[in-house]
Amino acid sequence: MANQQTSNWLNSYFPISIWLKNYTREDLNGDIFAGIITAILLVPQGIAYAMLAGLPAQVGLYASILPPLIYALLGSSRTLSVGPVSIAAIMIASVLAAPEIIELGSPVENAIILAAEGGFILLFMAMLRMGGLVNFISHPVLTGFTSGAAILIVLSQIPHLLGLAKNQCGLTLSCYNEYLQHINHYTLGLSLFSILLLLSFGSPLATLLKRFNVKTNIIIGLSKCAPLLAVIITTILVIVYQLSDLQNVAIVGEIQPGLPDISFAFFSNATQWQALLPGATFIALIAYVESVAIAKVTANLRNQKINPNQELIALGVANLATAFSGGMSVAGGFSRTMVNFTAGARTQMAMLIAVALLSIAVIFFTEQFTYLPKAALAAVILIAIFPLIKIREIISTWKYDQGDGFAELITLLGVLALGIEEGIALGVVITILSYLRRTSRPHIAVVGRIKETDHFRNIKRHQVETWKNLLLIRIDENISFANVSYIIDFIEDETINNAELKHIVLIFSSVSYIDRTAFEALENLINSLKNQQISLHLAEVKGPVLDKLKQTTFLEQLSPGKVFFQTIMAVEQLTDKK
Amino acid sequence: MANQQTSNWLNSYFPISIWLKNYTREDLNGDIFAGIITAILLVPQGIAYAMLAGLPAQVGLYASILPPLIYALLGSSRTLSVGPVSIAAIMIASVLAAPEIIELGSPVENAIILAAEGGFILLFMAMLRMGGLVNFISHPVLTGFTSGAAILIVLSQIPHLLGLAKNQCGLTLSCYNEYLQHINHYTLGLSLFSILLLLSFGSPLATLLKRFNVKTNIIIGLSKCAPLLAVIITTILVIVYQLSDLQNVAIVGEIQPGLPDISFAFFSNATQWQALLPGATFIALIAYVESVAIAKVTANLRNQKINPNQELIALGVANLATAFSGGMSVAGGFSRTMVNFTAGARTQMAMLIAVALLSIAVIFFTEQFTYLPKAALAAVILIAIFPLIKIREIISTWKYDQGDGFAELITLLGVLALGIEEGIALGVVITILSYLRRTSRPHIAVVGRIKETDHFRNIKRHQVETWKNLLLIRIDENISFANVSYIIDFIEDETINNAELKHIVLIFSSVSYIDRTAFEALENLINSLKNQQISLHLAEVKGPVLDKLKQTTFLEQLSPGKVFFQTIMAVEQLTDKK
Repeated sequence: MANQQTSNWLNSYFPISIWLKNYTREDLNGDIFAGIITAILLVPQGIAYAMLAGLPAQVGLYASILPPLIYALLGSSRTLSVGPVSIAAIMIASVLAAPEIIELGSPVENAIILAAEGGFILLFMAMLRMGGLVNFISHPVLTGFTSGAAILIVLSQIPHLLGLAKNQCGLTLSCYNEYLQHINHYTLGLSLFSILLLLSFGSPLATLLKRFNVKTNIIIGLSKCAPLLAVIITTILVIVYQLSDLQNVAIVGEIQPGLPDISFAFFSNATQWQALLPGATFIALIAYVESVAIAKVTANLRNQKINPNQELIALGVANLATAFSGGMSVAGGFSRTMVNFTAGARTQMAMLIAVALLSIAVIFFTEQFTYLPKAALAAVILIAIFPLIKIREIISTWKYDQGDGFAELITLLGVLALGIEEGIALGVVITILSYLRRTSRPHIAVVGRIKETDHFRNIKRHQVETWKNLLLIRIDENISFANVSYIIDFIEDETINNAELKHIVLIFSSVSYIDRTAFEALENLINSLKNQQISLHLAEVKGPVLDKLKQTTFLEQLSPGKVFFQTIMAVEQLTDKK
Repeated sequence: MANQQTSNWLNSYFPISIWLKNYTREDLNGDIFAGIITAILLVPQGIAYAMLAGLPAQVGLYASILPPLIYALLGSSRTLSVGPVSIAAIMIASVLAAPEIIELGSPVENAIILAAEGGFILLFMAMLRMGGLVNFISHPVLTGFTSGAAILIVLSQIPHLLGLAKNQCGLTLSCYNEYLQHINHYTLGLSLFSILLLLSFGSPLATLLKRFNVKTNIIIGLSKCAPLLAVIITTILVIVYQLSDLQNVAIVGEIQPGLPDISFAFFSNATQWQALLPGATFIALIAYVESVAIAKVTANLRNQKINPNQELIALGVANLATAFSGGMSVAGGFSRTMVNFTAGARTQMAMLIAVALLSIAVIFFTEQFTYLPKAALAAVILIAIFPLIKIREIISTWKYDQGDGFAELITLLGVLALGIEEGIALGVVITILSYLRRTSRPHIAVVGRIKETDHFRNIKRHQVETWKNLLLIRIDENISFANVSYIIDFIEDETINNAELKHIVLIFSSVSYIDRTAFEALENLINSLKNQQISLHLAEVKGPVLDKLKQTTFLEQLSPGKVFFQTIMAVEQLTDKK
């Protein structure tokens, strides 16, 4: 019995224990291949996303070691690849660039605190079981946000691609000439070479290899090697032609070799923690939302389930782990997870293998990355990020629903014009307002009786019996502050020019909740109808609603109006009398 | 024909033209009496609310002249008394006290800009027909806010009542002794006298006069004279005993005599307008919400209608008018409107009469108010504001619904602890979050067929026929980002441990809207069910929903799943086959 309980507890908090038990040889085959492919992607992505965030390369590599290991133990997705991701990286860059943040400490210190705070926030949300909160960021807002952030990322890489010193000039037309003059043509050459290599390793290579009947696995493996190949070839070019020394091509520079130290030093500074809290909250929320979204996509394809609350725990601990080991904020990466999945990953074992390989790279090969040109990394970022700019999806959302399309577009423009956090906040506000506006017009029907039956139907759609002194109104939704004034207006409009009306029966068959605002408005309605010599009645009131009304003086106020068990009873009593 | 149109236009934009046409002698009798009573109240309130806002007395008086006149022309309420109000006054005080605002200009200048901006905001909202927006401030939030603001007002009057110099000490216990030492006993005496007079003119006097069979009208008239009486008597006391010169009792001081000048000078400063915009928005919104709330109360009692959008126009122009004539922001006052109404006001003619009387006072009698002790004004504010602190209502809301009670309490505490704007923002956010949370759990039922009929009912509540290979699920609400993941989870849970299941039919009889997020989630559901060899079907899809789905590839993706016109058809087709 105790054993059973332990096992349940283990399964729910350490999902690894579920799949590890039934792990097969076949699983291992899939995981080894996927692990190698993912590791090949993880190395350039780790360095590139650190650069994107404005941090030294090792911060991205460190974030690729402990966090995926932790996630493998705690995460409920079997194929999510946790580590540094582009959207979080650009958000980190935006937080770290604020003047009041720069004052507080080095970028690395600030980035570590951002990750630690994010971890605590996610764990706090897990404690409050707030996993469902993510549902309130609607899909259009998320797409608009991602597209906007991706455009920002692309723009941020232009100086690297052209070999311009950063912030030399803005992105205005008057800078055009200046740009042309300052372009480093060697850097541009390396960029173009990398981009072409990355593009040709996509579908063109796959089509070619398929013609030669090459195995699908090998095709996938080869096509995912492009980033590493681009990095290696351009690095060799820089070394051979001394492009860094002679032609001023920007390179990554020395990367600290070896595994990260575990440190708790970042806990000390309260002002810093306070200043970074808003940014950390946004990064943590977006990291969580994107991770769960991609985890669900892959889980659905294999009939597996994602546990939103367990994801909060897993990502929370993973972000604490990245902070302890000197890394940046982590999340489940979209492109990396899809690579891991399509390469055949069955379980998180694939990520464990990838981490092992990456650790070897970090221990033995960091020196080799010193001459890696930033242009190649920018090309890797560019190709990874482009599919996230979903202009076509915005158009199709707009066609489907103008309100949702509007929210999507405004979020995108908000991210570009106002900033990343501001853009998504704007999108959320617009979505909620338009949702409230929509729900503020509930479905209400004046109903009549289908002759000789006890069925009541909408008078607009059916041939039904009605009465001059009695009006039956069916309210098809819960009544709350958002829709009560619409309902009251509807009822009042029905009473105008209706001098013979003596009774109104509200049919509450679909009402399972009346909030306080609605309750008070109904009380006022009773009195206002009484002034017009009209009695209000209720019919088909559900148990919980009636219980609540009984706790108040509502029923006394209603009197002489009554509560009828069935609508037919109201008709019999109220029409016979008159 | 043209005449008819003109008259419609006139009636809708100038509601005065409706009642003026049928104005009777009887109406006039009621209006004259109510006008006199309201004027008697308007004078001390105008001065007192200006003091509350931290402004010179004439700013409050000017706000009582042009704005009610404008409202009489444009407003859709016949008894709303527009002018300076306490809640707006304390909000103005809070905005004007901010250090970054003090730098920008004199308090009077800033107050005038606040009013002008508020006017433009309301007119802008009218243009967008946003009158309904007010419904999204729920009743509990409004009550919590009003109570909190009222407590702040009471606290702000303590120094005036005790005769302490302002900001001498905080409201902490350690200040207790200091307070005791600095109390001006003459001021305290005047305060106590005024409070006792105001209290005894309430129900005690009314009960007494009723015993002597005095007419109700006269009782009302007499009891509403208390504020003016308190002001006059204490002023006389100050003059006779030279309390101001000899005993340092704080007085109003010289009031600028005469009617206000019309000026447009405040338009000049853009920085000032920008800095005051957030405050002006909050004040305008609250002014509007409170005005409509009280207008509705009195209109309901006489079967009249309030037009929310026309109110935006009327209050918008009234606030521009107050700015042009050197006054502070205006709204419909709760206590003053109730006085006007109970004194027998039939139309806005009452307010026109009140304005005429007030103008006479402003032209000829300002000198008499010079020695008016601030203590008496503080007493007037205190007695007017106390009924707005609705602790009992908070308790009854809590009993009715804990969520609403929580929102109410948090709003009140937020106003006290964080500030006026912050408190109401907090309350609105909490209300919307709890609303979203509630609507995120829609009503869904697995239904079965009542034997030998084509009726389908919830399997939990009725004896119905079910099938092993077919599941019928009725969704009782519109599907949106807020509830779609609950719905998907519900459906997925039903498929677990149900190996024989081949078909799921979603009955959309209550679904009249599917937003983009829900649409995409349903697409994913189709594919995920296909992986489990289950087909998804729809039944009883409403016309507009089907039209929308037809615009997309949804129906192709659904295939081999179908859309059935009636649920019974789905049952016949899908159960016969197997």
